Parts: sequence; structure tokens; C-alpha cells
Amino acid sequence: MRPDDTLSAGLPEQLPDPVREALLAPLVDHHCHGVRRDDLVRAQFEPLISESGAPAPPGTTHFDTPLGMAIRRWCAPVLDLAPHAPAAVYLARRSELGPAEVNRRLLGAAGVAAFLVDAGADAGRGGAELLSAAELGRLGGTAADEIARIEQIEEDVAGAASSGVSYIADLETELAARAARAAGLASVVAHRCGLDLDPARPSRGSVIAAANRRLADPKELLTDPVLLRHLLWTAVDAARERSLPLRFHTGQGGPVGDPHRADPALLAGFVRALQPIGVPVVLLGCYPFHRQAARLAAVFPHVYVDAGPALPVTAAGSAAVMAELLELVPFHKQLFGSGARGVAETCHLGALYHRRALAGVLAERLAAGEWNASDAARVAHMIGSGNARRLYRL
Amino acid sequence: MRPDDTLSAGLPEQLPDPVREALLAPLVDHHCHGVRRDDLVRAQFEPLISESGAPAPPGTTHFDTPLGMAIRRWCAPVLDLAPHAPAAVYLARRSELGPAEVNRRLLGAAGVAAFLVDAGADAGRGGAELLSAAELGRLGGTAADEIARIEQIEEDVAGAASSGVSYIADLETELAARAARAAGLASVVAHRCGLDLDPARPSRGSVIAAANRRLADPKELLTDPVLLRHLLWTAVDAARERSLPLRFHTGQGGPVGDPHRADPALLAGFVRALQPIGVPVVLLGCYPFHRQAARLAAVFPHVYVDAGPALPVTAAGSAAVMAELLELVPFHKQLFGSGARGVAETCHLGALYHRRALAGVLAERLAAGEWNASDAARVAHMIGSGNARRLYRL
Amino acid sequence: MRPDDTLSAGLPEQLPDPVREALLAPLVDHHCHGVRRDDLVRAQFEPLISESGAPAPPGTTHFDTPLGMAIRRWCAPVLDLAPHAPAAVYLARRSELGPAEVNRRLLGAAGVAAFLVDAGADAGRGGAELLSAAELGRLGGTAADEIARIEQIEEDVAGAASSGVSYIADLETELAARAARAAGLASVVAHRCGLDLDPARPSRGSVIAAANRRLADPKELLTDPVLLRHLLWTAVDAARERSLPLRFHTGQGGPVGDPHRADPALLAGFVRALQPIGVPVVLLGCYPFHRQAARLAAVFPHVYVDAGPALPVTAAGSAAVMAELLELVPFHKQLFGSGARGVAETCHLGALYHRRALAGVLAERLAAGEWNASDAARVAHMIGSGNARRLYRL
Repeated sequence: MRPDDTLSAGLPEQLPDPVREALLAPLVDHHCHGVRRDDLVRAQFEPLISESGAPAPPGTTHFDTPLGMAIRRWCAPVLDLAPHAPAAVYLARRSELGPAEVNRRLLGAAGVAAFLVDAGADAGRGGAELLSAAELGRLGGTAADEIARIEQIEEDVAGAASSGVSYIADLETELAARAARAAGLASVVAHRCGLDLDPARPSRGSVIAAANRRLADPKELLTDPVLLRHLLWTAVDAARERSLPLRFHTGQGGPVGDPHRADPALLAGFVRALQPIGVPVVLLGCYPFHRQAARLAAVFPHVYVDAGPALPVTAAGSAAVMAELLELVPFHKQLFGSGARGVAETCHLGALYHRRALAGVLAERLAAGEWNASDAARVAHMIGSGNARRLYRL
Repeated sequence: MRPDDTLSAGLPEQLPDPVREALLAPLVDHHCHGVRRDDLVRAQFEPLISESGAPAPPGTTHFDTPLGMAIRRWCAPVLDLAPHAPAAVYLARRSELGPAEVNRRLLGAAGVAAFLVDAGADAGRGGAELLSAAELGRLGGTAADEIARIEQIEEDVAGAASSGVSYIADLETELAARAARAAGLASVVAHRCGLDLDPARPSRGSVIAAANRRLADPKELLTDPVLLRHLLWTAVDAARERSLPLRFHTGQGGPVGDPHRADPALLAGFVRALQPIGVPVVLLGCYPFHRQAARLAAVFPHVYVDAGPALPVTAAGSAAVMAELLELVPFHKQLFGSGARGVAETCHLGALYHRRALAGVLAERLAAGEWNASDAARVAHMIGSGNARRLYRL
Repeated sequence: MRPDDTLSAGLPEQLPDPVREALLAPLVDHHCHGVRRDDLVRAQFEPLISESGAPAPPGTTHFDTPLGMAIRRWCAPVLDLAPHAPAAVYLARRSELGPAEVNRRLLGAAGVAAFLVDAGADAGRGGAELLSAAELGRLGGTAADEIARIEQIEEDVAGAASSGVSYIADLETELAARAARAAGLASVVAHRCGLDLDPARPSRGSVIAAANRRLADPKELLTDPVLLRHLLWTAVDAARERSLPLRFHTGQGGPVGDPHRADPALLAGFVRALQPIGVPVVLLGCYPFHRQAARLAAVFPHVYVDAGPALPVTAAGSAAVMAELLELVPFHKQLFGSGARGVAETCHLGALYHRRALAGVLAERLAAGEWNASDAARVAHMIGSGNARRLYRL
């Protein structure tokens, strides 16, 4: 199967040519993570396709999920299998081809021109075995840039700082250095202390006191709200200096944290504080709060959103999520991000469901006489790559 | 194009006659705001079609939104242009016809029999240039009544009161006077201190103390929770006296305030407190919390809801919003409100998408064999005008 | 009309045979409540089909709701009436047949193999007139087991205990005894103090103090958070001992409590605390927070969900709710529950809309080429009965 067949297989028949072409054009995936480079047996593969990061309960399988069904349906043919191949057959074929070939095929057939790779390693996802941004780009035959994860930078700084005072200086220096090499900065504060944080920059005294406490045990996951707020504001300085966007993982995420505190609406105060500073804010993921994210993008000129991991994870249901996002979002504010993580299947399916879901919504708008084909094609281009190129100056 | 063609253009072909007639019958728009009377250049028009109230970021336009697309699609023909006319062409034609003719056409073609106009002026929307309720009715060829905005009445009182004690008396007098001339009272407390307020009536002592503080700077936007609660309870007294409903803007709103605190579910305690008093509560807008609003309308006999500005703002996506509202709401509790604001286009599109969205849901119910045509027509009448006539005794 | 006709009447024509058969197979309704055994005049029947539990406002009827429409559409034929029979005709026929025959017909035609009946009586639903689990099973020609409502057990204990110390011992004994006879334990803490409770087990001292206060007025509805947390943790012990699931009513519920505090996402901390203990958690109802519930089921291996009362209550709109639940939920974690309550119509419609809504989603997946028929049939079996049989070891 040639890449073009794979790409167009997912689209409705009745789309006008310009709309179809716009949807099939190379995407900028502004939001993905590393995928594993090693061969994975079933006991390793299953946790990687579940938000739980753990094996399925006895007698069940994570293939019995929307994502699992989608892997069997859409990734199997990329590995030369029939659609809906059984999970065991799929995994055997995956091992037979070997991870490099599997990654090359799945990434290559995604129809992506550039990846922006969040370098943050997640606990339990096998950090050392994750492809770097450069490797991901090489396998996918694309450009690739790195997004620096600020909580990870803080961990490096906390592990080396000698005092609360030097912690502050080191963090500033290191964030500036990493910002100089990155296409953007990203935060997972939603899963650490929640997005309902005090938007004010904390006082220097309170930061020094909290940093001194932290340095007593720098291996601990950072959850202290004062230090997280300090980290965010130091990142704002670095982002402003380099004209980079600051990205927030919201909505879906790992099992750490309280899910209702990852609602991007809770970030409104902080977003308002950033408006005069001119640092763009990107709300990642957002599901099931994507309507709230779309509202913030409608209200604030510096806010952007994506559908993120909701695309591969909701899979056959992703058209409804895309439709809800498009109810309110300004079309110049939505980005394509696969939210891919762990295995190349999520990257492939993120691109596939972006095209399928957007195609479904556009086909509906056209059939209802709401939009015309040239507007539909233009919006598909904007969301697929144009907005990301403008925001990240690619 | 005759008004009837405009109205019916948006409806599905296959609707049974009684349902089509019920949908095309004149609406009562129980929830709109003033629209501008002056000629608007593009730099003035664009902020009025965005929730941001600000220009679009450089290189973008607020026409690239669901509402912007809908203006080009549905309002262009009312101004004798082809559907999907470019924004520049649309605005040139708008200026050519002049604001009076544009307003007359767009309001007249909305198929509305009566407007209830929320008199509250929003910052940045050009208060002095907004048509009054009477003018709106004259241009639309309809009846028009005024809804008094209680926070605006409070501003008038705060600007003139000489002490905390006289503030209380003046507020009571002024609210009673304004209620005597109004069809209802409306509050924007959601965007001032949030709907998660203490539902209890504050003590007289605490109100006097807070009022004395307020009188030191009466031009400030009122955000003090004690005074807002006092205002609400004084409004309850006035509403009960005149058998008027008390309306709450919820969900979507201006950039002031925290979006998650505009969830109407947060108002449950206050709603419960009002139940024995017999003052109807109307939840306006609600999106993206419209399912919560529908639940309150299902649980409490005195609660009503509308889809409000979500209709023109979500535009091509409004059928999904309408469907979600209709999942739970008692059909005798839903009202039509356009939530129109700023430009007559929002008023026209509110009515158009009300009819289109409701037609879509009804067509689906009929095709699925769930409802019959006479029930569908009856529900369309209730929501379109019957419920508002009963509630407001029009 | 034979039961089979009733069952299949609601399904789309174009389903493949294995999918149709899987949908028509007998269900396990793991979540219903008692239904009334007595003859009901209209003034009694109407409050039972409304979440308000009260008469409709003057000039309106609770039949003008999605549930009311569904009763006239789908239950009327079971009583030998034409679809869409007027409410008065329906109620007259209901009285003519008598409650035993009506219950026998509606329950029997639901196509249910086993009921798990939540024994909790709700205020205003006529406790003594509710059929017991055994009676419900007899009328429906099915198996039936009881789910013990822990707040009701606490009321019995509080009414008899002589001191805070004996309250603790009695509660432990009584919960263990009731767990020995039950298929599961259920809590309505969401509607008592909200799900945003401190997940920690309270100290013995604080429980004794709170219990002593409670024993002064044991008829009061229990809303004390310390005693509710103690009750939950004592229930956890009893559930672990008997390998029973602990169920939480979430989302929709009676007018008591604050609706936003019934969001299952708020329970994440407690769910996390239960994970190492191995007690399964079942999130009941959840609407309009069902996407959050699905996420918890995806993240935590011991969490299960159902659509519960949203099925009969959203009725013609239930396919959208089902589709949203299926966006994320692992298929081995979703259960069928009608959430039936008060009248047998809700039980019948719960099963009917489960089949209709799931059929709609599956038909869409098949038409889109997303799933194949054998997977669709397998998922229908899992959700319809297989998951419940595994979880409750039926």
C-alpha cells in the first residue's frame, strides 16, 4: 500500500477535490512525544496503549478499547496485514518486522512534514528507549524540533543546586539555555498541583524557602505550588525572550493528579496575566474540556488549542470531539497535534483521525450548505499546518 | 429574497408541513441585547463579532470563526449578495446600504414577533450607539420590552447614594421602580464574583459596611460578593412583587471573571432558596454547561433555560448544542433567545440557527420513529414562543 | 406483540445478524431500583417520571419531556395501545390492566435475564409500595439479587445504637451481615456531602465524637462528612471481605445536594486509595459527567461505569450519550444498568434505549469501516451482560 492510499483510505468519498487535497497535504504535528525504539512483547505493548500505563485486568485486554480497535483496523494494513487482524497476529508481525521498520512505516505513512517533540519522559514509559526528536524525524523522513519540558529542566536543576538562592539563578540560566535550542516550552503543572493555581508570581523569599525544602530531597516529584508557580514565571521570562509559546498539558493525562483540576478553564487567571506580556499560550489535549479550551482561544488573542491525544485515543469517536472543538474555536487558533506517546501507532493514528475527523466535519458543513469548498480547504490547511508554521515560525 | 424564503431556506426539505409551519411561525426572542446604530468600519465590526471584544491577532480575521462564516453565508443574501461573499465585499455592501437599512433588513427577516431586550451595556460595545428596545422593535417591526440589568441599576444607585444606609433604601426603591417598567430582571453575577456564591441573604450590618466601602469609589465595577448577594436578594423582592422572572447570564460571557465559575450548576443552592418564594429563574446561555442547565430545569419547577448566544456563535455546530439541551430539558421549560449582541447579524443568525438546529433535531426524532409530527410541531411552538408568552405573560 | 418484536422494533434494519443477535440477547440490568406495586393516578404517576419528584408546574405536564415522549412511543404498544397514545389514554389503560399486569408486561418485555436491585428507598418514591428484588425478578421472569445501600444501613444502626462506640461496632457488624446477603454495596454520598470528600479514613476519635452528635437526632439525613467517610471505609472492609464491588451514584440524582459535587472525577483520590485494596469501584449514572467516568475507567483497572438513568431519561437523545461514553471507555469496563426507578416504564425503556443507542453507535462504526461485525457483536455481549457476570460473579 502506498502512503497516498493509506492517507486517502480514511476520507469520505464525496469530498470536493480542493478539500481532499488540503486534508491530504503534509501536516505539522506540533505535539507528540517519543516512541519506543525497542522490540515490545505483548506485556510491554499493552500498557503503552492504555492511559493506565498498567496491564489490563485479568481476563481482559487493552486492545478492547477504541485505540486498540483502531490499531487493528488501520495500523495492521501498514504492516501488510488485513484490517481487523487479531491482536496476537498484529504483535507477531510487529516483532517479525522489527521496531525500526515498524516505526519507519507507521511514521512515514502518517503524512507528516514536521514533528515538534515534547522531550519530557513519562514515568513507566521507558525513557531511555524513547526515540529522540532527531531520530523520530529521521525515521519519519521529516523535520523535527524539540519542545523543552520545564518540569524536567527543574529536576535537573534541583539535583545540582546547592542552595535555594543558587536554585533560582540556576533555573533561570538553564531555562534560558534550553529555550535557545527549543521550539517551545511545555508544562505538566496540571498533573502536579492542578491548573487552579494562584496566577501571581511568588515572592523571592517564599521561593527560596520552598527551594531549600525541596533541595533536601530533590528526587521527589515536584508538586509544591510555590515552586511550580516560580517555574512557570521563569519559563514565561525565557519564552518572552525567545518569542516562544508556553504550552500546557490539560485534560487527559497520567494517573497522577486530580482530573477535574486539569480543566483549562481554571487557567484563565494565569492566561489573563500573560496577555500583556505577549507570550502565546497553547492548551494541549484538553479532552473532555475541549469546549472550554476553545472558548479561551476565542476570548484571548494569545491562546491556541489542539485536540491532542484525544484523536488516537477516542479513535472511531474522534469526529464528535473535533466537531465540538470546531463549534467555537477561531480557525486560526487550532493546531494539529497527535499527542502521540509510547508507540508509533499513536502517531500514525493521530494523523489519520485528524484527517478523518476533520473530513467528517467539513463534509457535513458542505452538505448542509454552510461552508463552500474553498473555505473548507483553507480551514483544513490552517489547522493542518499553517497555524503551527505561523506560531512556531517554522 | 422575501422573508419567507430566507426563513425556510435553512430548513431540511423533508419536514412534515405542521412541523415546518411551527418552525417558521414568529418567534419570541426573550434574550437579546442592543445592536449598533452607527456605520461600522472593519476595525469596529470585527471586535463586535468576537467574544474577545478585541481585534484579531495580526494576519488573522474574526471572520475565520463559526460566526464569521455564518455571516458570509446567511446574512450576505439578506444584503443582496451571493452566499459566502468575501468579508470585504460584505462590509462594503453593509456601508453602502447604511446601518438603518441593514438593521431593518436583518431584524425584519429574522421572523421574530417580540424582543425582550436586556438593557445592560457591555464595556467596549459602544453603549450610546446601541439601539434601545423601542428602536429595535420599530426596526424589526415587532413588539419590544425591556429587561432591567440589576448590576447597572446598582451602579446608578452607588453613584448617587450618600451612605451605606441610604444605599440600601435607594437600591430597593430604584429596583422596584425599574421592575415596574420591565418584563424581567437580569444579573451578570456569574462574570462578577462567580455563581458559587453563598446563597444566604447577607446581614444588614455586613451590607452597610460593604456599601460604605463601595461608596468611596462608586465607579469601580461591583465585584464584592456581599453587595452582589444583597443586590440579588433585593432583586428577588422586586421580582416577587411584580411576578417577574430573575435571569442569570451563565456560561459564555465576556473576558471578565473565571469561566468555570459561570457553571449554572453552582447556582443550585440559590435556586433552591428561591423555590418557596415563587420567583422563576431563567438560566441564559449556559454553553458549554447547557446540560447542567437542562438538569436544573428538570429538577426545579421554577427554572427555565435557553441556548442563548451559543446559537449564532456556534453557528454551523449549533444543532449539536440544541440536541444536547433537548436530551433532558422539559419542553415547557426551554425558551428561544438569540443572545444577540452588538450587531444585527447576531440577532438574525440567532433566529436562523434556532430554526435550523431545532429542525435538525426534530427531523432526526421523526426519522427514528421516536416522535410524531404533531408532537414535534407542538414542541417547536412551545420553545419558539409559547413558553416565553406564558412565563413573561406577553 | 411478542417480546421479540418489541425488542427488535427499536433496532436499525441494516445490522449484520451476529450484531443484532448480540443486541437482542438477554441483558443483565446491574442497576435498577424498586418500582411501584400500586395503582397510580395521574397525580401520583407524573412525579415518578420527573427528576423533580414533584408535580409539573400549572398548565404543563411531565409527559412533555424526553422520558414522557418515550413512554407514549414505546410503552403504549406493550399495553396494546398505538404508539404515541395520549398521556390520558395511556394512564387509563394502565389502570384498566392493573399494576401487576402492567409491571409483568413491561418488565417481561425488557429482555432482561437478571436484575441487581438497589434496595435504597428514596424519599417521596413510596418506599412501602416498591417491589422488592425478589418480586421484581418474579414479575420479570428473571433472576434478581439485592444491592445494599450503605446509607440506609447506617440509618438503621444510628436508630438503635446507644453510644458513639457501639455505633462503630454495630455499623461494622451490620454492614458485614448485609454484605453477606448482597451482590454489591452502593453509596449515595454524592448527594449527601459531595464526592469531593477527603479520601482518608477518619480517626476513631473523630468518628466517635461525630457519632455521639448524630445519635442525638438519628432521624436526620446523614450529611456529616466524617461519618460518611467512616461509613465508606467500613463498607470497603465489608466489600473486600466478600469480594463485592462498591458502587457510587454520581451525576444525576435527586434535588438534594449540589450537582457539580456529583462529578465522578472528584472521586479520583478515593479511587486511588482503593486501588491497592482490590475493591472494584462502579460509577453509576454519571451523566452529564460520563466522559469523566469513562476516563477513570480507562486509567484505573478497578473502575467500572454505566450509563444508568441517562438511558431512559434522555430517551431519544440517548445515542449521543452512549457514543460519548464509548469514546474512551475500555469495553470490558462498561455495564448495562437501566437506573430504573419508581415505575416499570423506566426499566423497560432503560433496556430498550440501551439496545437502540448501542445499535446506533455500532451501526455507525460498521458503516464507517471502523469495526467489523464480530468485534461489534463481542462488544455488545460484553457490555450487555458479560462484564456484569464477571464483576458480580453471577
